[in-house]
Parts: sequence; C-alpha cells; structure tokens
Amino acid sequence: MRDRTEIDTLIDLMARLPGLGPRSARRAVLHLIRKRALLLTPLADAMTAVAASARECVNCGNVGTADVCAICADETRSNGLLCVVEDVADLWAMERSNVFKGRYHVLGGTLSALDSIGPDELRIPQLVRRVEDEAISEVILALNATVDGQTTAHYIADQLETRVALTSLAQGVPIGGELDYLDDGTITAALNARRRI
Amino acid sequence: MRDRTEIDTLIDLMARLPGLGPRSARRAVLHLIRKRALLLTPLADAMTAVAASARECVNCGNVGTADVCAICADETRSNGLLCVVEDVADLWAMERSNVFKGRYHVLGGTLSALDSIGPDELRIPQLVRRVEDEAISEVILALNATVDGQTTAHYIADQLETRVALTSLAQGVPIGGELDYLDDGTITAALNARRRI
Ligand SMILES: [Zn+2]
Ligand SMILES: [Zn+2]
Repeated sequence: MRDRTEIDTLIDLMARLPGLGPRSARRAVLHLIRKRALLLTPLADAMTAVAASARECVNCGNVGTADVCAICADETRSNGLLCVVEDVADLWAMERSNVFKGRYHVLGGTLSALDSIGPDELRIPQLVRRVEDEAISEVILALNATVDGQTTAHYIADQLETRVALTSLAQGVPIGGELDYLDDGTITAALNARRRI
Repeated sequence: MRDRTEIDTLIDLMARLPGLGPRSARRAVLHLIRKRALLLTPLADAMTAVAASARECVNCGNVGTADVCAICADETRSNGLLCVVEDVADLWAMERSNVFKGRYHVLGGTLSALDSIGPDELRIPQLVRRVEDEAISEVILALNATVDGQTTAHYIADQLETRVALTSLAQGVPIGGELDYLDDGTITAALNARRRI
C-alpha cells in the first residue's frame, strides 16, 4: 500500500470542498505538492489566517475580519438603501458589479417548508429591526429568481410593505444572453417587462 | 469596498488549483468559513503537514513522506515486476485497482519534441539503471494511450528490449484514454490481459 499519511488526509479533506470530488482532489494535492513554495505553503498560511480572523458581521451577516464588516463600517456608503440577498456569495456578486453603493442584509438562505427553514432560521427578524432602527428609505429584494427565493421575497414584502419602499431586481435577458439558451420563464418575464425603445 | 484581506488572499490562491476557477474558489472559501472547525482548520493543518513532509521517492519518483516511499520500502511486494507510469496520479490509479503487487517507476511525464522534453528530462536513465541493478524480470509499460505516451513507450522499449521482458497494458484502455480517468475494473482487466511487446 502507498503511504496513507498526511497526504491522504489532505486528499480526503480537499474532496469535501464544493466542486471537487475524489479525483480532482487527488489532482489538486499533487499540484500542491509540486508547487510547495509557490502555492501549498501560502495556502496553508492563508487558511490558518482566515480560520483565526473570519467572522460574520453582527449587523448584516456579511463575512469579514472584524465584528462589523468593511461595508457596514464604510461611512461613504449610502445608509438609505438596503439590499437584501440570500447569501454572502450573492453580496460579493453585487459588489463585483460595482454599481450598488448602499448597505446589505444577508438572510443566510431562503424560507423552505421542506427543510423546516422559517423566518427565525434566517436573518429576517434582524432585517425588520434594521428597517425600524436605521434611516432606510428603500429595501431592494435581490433574491434569486427561484421558487424559494421568490417565496422569501413575498414573505419579507408582507413584513415590510407598510414601513418602507420595496423594490426588486428587474427580470429579463442577461447582457450577452442568447434567447436560445434561456429558459422559458426568463423569456416570458423579459417579454412581459418589455420597454419602449 | 468589502474587506480585501486574508479572505481575498485565500480566494486568489484557491482559484489557482486545477479544476477551480474564481467562482468555485469563492464558493469553496465561503464553505470553508462556514465549516471552520470541521474543515478549514483541519485543512490548514493538513496542508502545513504535507508542506513539511511530502517528498519524491529517490528510487521510483512516487510522492510520499519519506526519502524512500512506502511502496519501495514494502518487502511483501514483488521485486521482479516493474510498472512504468507517466506520473504519480497514474501510480495512484494503478494502486486503487488493487491488482498489481510489484514495484513502480514514475517517469514524470512523456517525451515531447514540442515541449523539448527528452529522456534526460524524464526518469528514463534511472529506469535503465534500475533494470540493470535490480532483479527485474518484467517491465510493464503502463503509459497513457496517447501519441506522446506511446512514443515514450516505444523509446523505452528500444532501450530495454535486450535486457528484460517488456509488456504493455492490454487493449481495453480506450484510444486517447488516460489511466486516471478509468474505473478500477478497466484497469484490472487491462493489467490481467497485458501483452508482450
Ligand atoms: Zn456588515
Ligand atoms: Zn518509491
């Protein structure tokens, strides 16, 4: 048998990452061993640093390295606009578009009867409290266009509609999107929301 | 802007792993932060351990945690059979089939005029020396069924044919197929039906 030691432990752990299976984990570990100084050691150090420093923002649920995240702490951002997203990956996607300059609120998932996820399992009570306490003029519900995402958006809208203006992202054909590759629901939504040129 | 700190460093490094791009690296890092105790810290520790201990076997080119790998050090394995593979991933694939009980020799690639890889860039001189020095009765050329793999097999066969019996894996390895993509049964069948060259 080959040496079942640290190398196999590392392969087993790598295989538990989303997007990697046993085979790609083995490939990745061989690559890491070949690039020990350039990649393996820096990666080990970065993971150790993140394990020590990463935390959830007490205010919005974003991930950062302080109790209050850099976005919540940034005084140049607008307090009036609050963008509600399902998870931190969605927040990062919004930030990459580089167009939104307000604040965020990360729910941590969507309502799901099937998985017994109710409002209290998400950051919905905290959202209602922020709308009450902060000077928020508009809440943008940037939830995914899935059944659970839209169910969650409707629930939040019910909670907040008397307190604040509510908007959602426009639905339509993505930039560069080809009609032939879009699902019927997207085409229907884009057609229903058609604009005069 | 969000906190460009250890978390972003970790994402950048993860995106350099084979099979992961920027998007899957971000997903993986969020997953790691959520599973800090169960996955992130163990992974950081395993990487640190592998960075400290992993080395190439001086005899066969396998990767292990000692100067001579566990396969070369295993006295229960047959010394007479030597299986030549392109890289360590192929050796691991052979081992998973659990049918070969001889020794290995890892070339570290294939001959390639295009990439200026000649015999001396591979572990071919060491292979010739092992055949001269060790009591090897048969060399199994388990190279990939690619053009470069087969060119390399022919070159090695020319070097060794007067000194030792040479075999190759049987048909059953698909044309253009790489060992590391094959299921264990295919490898077993191909090994059992190996032919004299
Ligand atoms: Zn925050
Ligand atoms: Zn060895």
